[in-house]
Amino acid sequence: MELFDDEPTSTREAIMQATYAALAKHGYADLTIQRISDEFEKSKSLLYHHYDSKDALLVDFLSFMLEQMDADVPIDECGNAYDQLMSAFNHVFGELFEEPDFLRAVLELRAQAATDETYRRQFTANEEFIQSRLVAIIRNGIEDGTFREVDPDRTAQMLLTIIDGAILRQATIDDVDTDVVREELDTYVRLRLVADDAEIDA
Amino acid sequence: MELFDDEPTSTREAIMQATYAALAKHGYADLTIQRISDEFEKSKSLLYHHYDSKDALLVDFLSFMLEQMDADVPIDECGNAYDQLMSAFNHVFGELFEEPDFLRAVLELRAQAATDETYRRQFTANEEFIQSRLVAIIRNGIEDGTFREVDPDRTAQMLLTIIDGAILRQATIDDVDTDVVREELDTYVRLRLVADDAEIDA
Repeated sequence: MELFDDEPTSTREAIMQATYAALAKHGYADLTIQRISDEFEKSKSLLYHHYDSKDALLVDFLSFMLEQMDADVPIDECGNAYDQLMSAFNHVFGELFEEPDFLRAVLELRAQAATDETYRRQFTANEEFIQSRLVAIIRNGIEDGTFREVDPDRTAQMLLTIIDGAILRQATIDDVDTDVVREELDTYVRLRLVADDAEIDA
Repeated sequence: MELFDDEPTSTREAIMQATYAALAKHGYADLTIQRISDEFEKSKSLLYHHYDSKDALLVDFLSFMLEQMDADVPIDECGNAYDQLMSAFNHVFGELFEEPDFLRAVLELRAQAATDETYRRQFTANEEFIQSRLVAIIRNGIEDGTFREVDPDRTAQMLLTIIDGAILRQATIDDVDTDVVREELDTYVRLRLVADDAEIDA
């Protein structure tokens, strides 16, 4: 994942890169702090010093991903709202779906949120962040005339539901064709969001 | 859940009812064969006799749910294809979403499929079954003129992706409003599937 490709500039970033590598390699159930520290070049005692448990480290990992999304994904960089939305989808479908091992590990973490309040709060925060970005893009689109006068909050929730469904299926079902989902998602956007007279490169 | 309400007519059905009750009560991680047998009125040794492990029992539970769907959900009972589709959605949103504890437990089982081949095969079979039902309904709709000439397989996959996304979000995120998802799902069906001149009770 692009996010974890750079040379780490802080100890926390180095820990997060080690966590990412260990998660993709071992999955959630077989992960231990020892296995994360095996991916970590600096002093291993540092890891135990910072985190009480594997779950504490993993929740911090999710929080780190949120901070990175906040820093890395500008919404109004260029193009109209439709282009911004496609670029957000490309990001998800490109980065996440091309790393099946990591995707499965993230799904295992997400399932912890079914019973663990700490994971649940963190995933709720991460989803709310993505939701707020999608709402902002849809608002831009309504303002610049690219999109219809839809309810930004409800339609953003639907987009997120489709993305989450694609993640769940890809991580747990054989032979899912994510291209089909992506194309149907684009069709949904054209039918539900894009204004009749908007000029888009579809 | 309706499926587990009736007086059991076989030992297997009684075991499945006990499993359902124990899953909703304890979730997956804290479930044991002992806890399932606590919900079981007949001879408890029977349970240990039939199943080697909790996971063997749970995979059989998923297989049982598939058989029940096959027996219980006729697709062409009445109404046009649109009514059939709404009735299928009502089934999912009514039954599953009104039992949050059971929904969370099912999501935990589903997450096992990320790493366990046996769970993965079973969930793939269950999803393929639902997919085939949705495809049949969409085909009916194209034939009777209710739906446009869409690709039944691709659109069915999208419907399933939306339902799976709703399940994942409801089970792992705080304050999800499933009514919003259901209404946006209906809007998607009207925009993507329903023919311009079809008479539907939307």
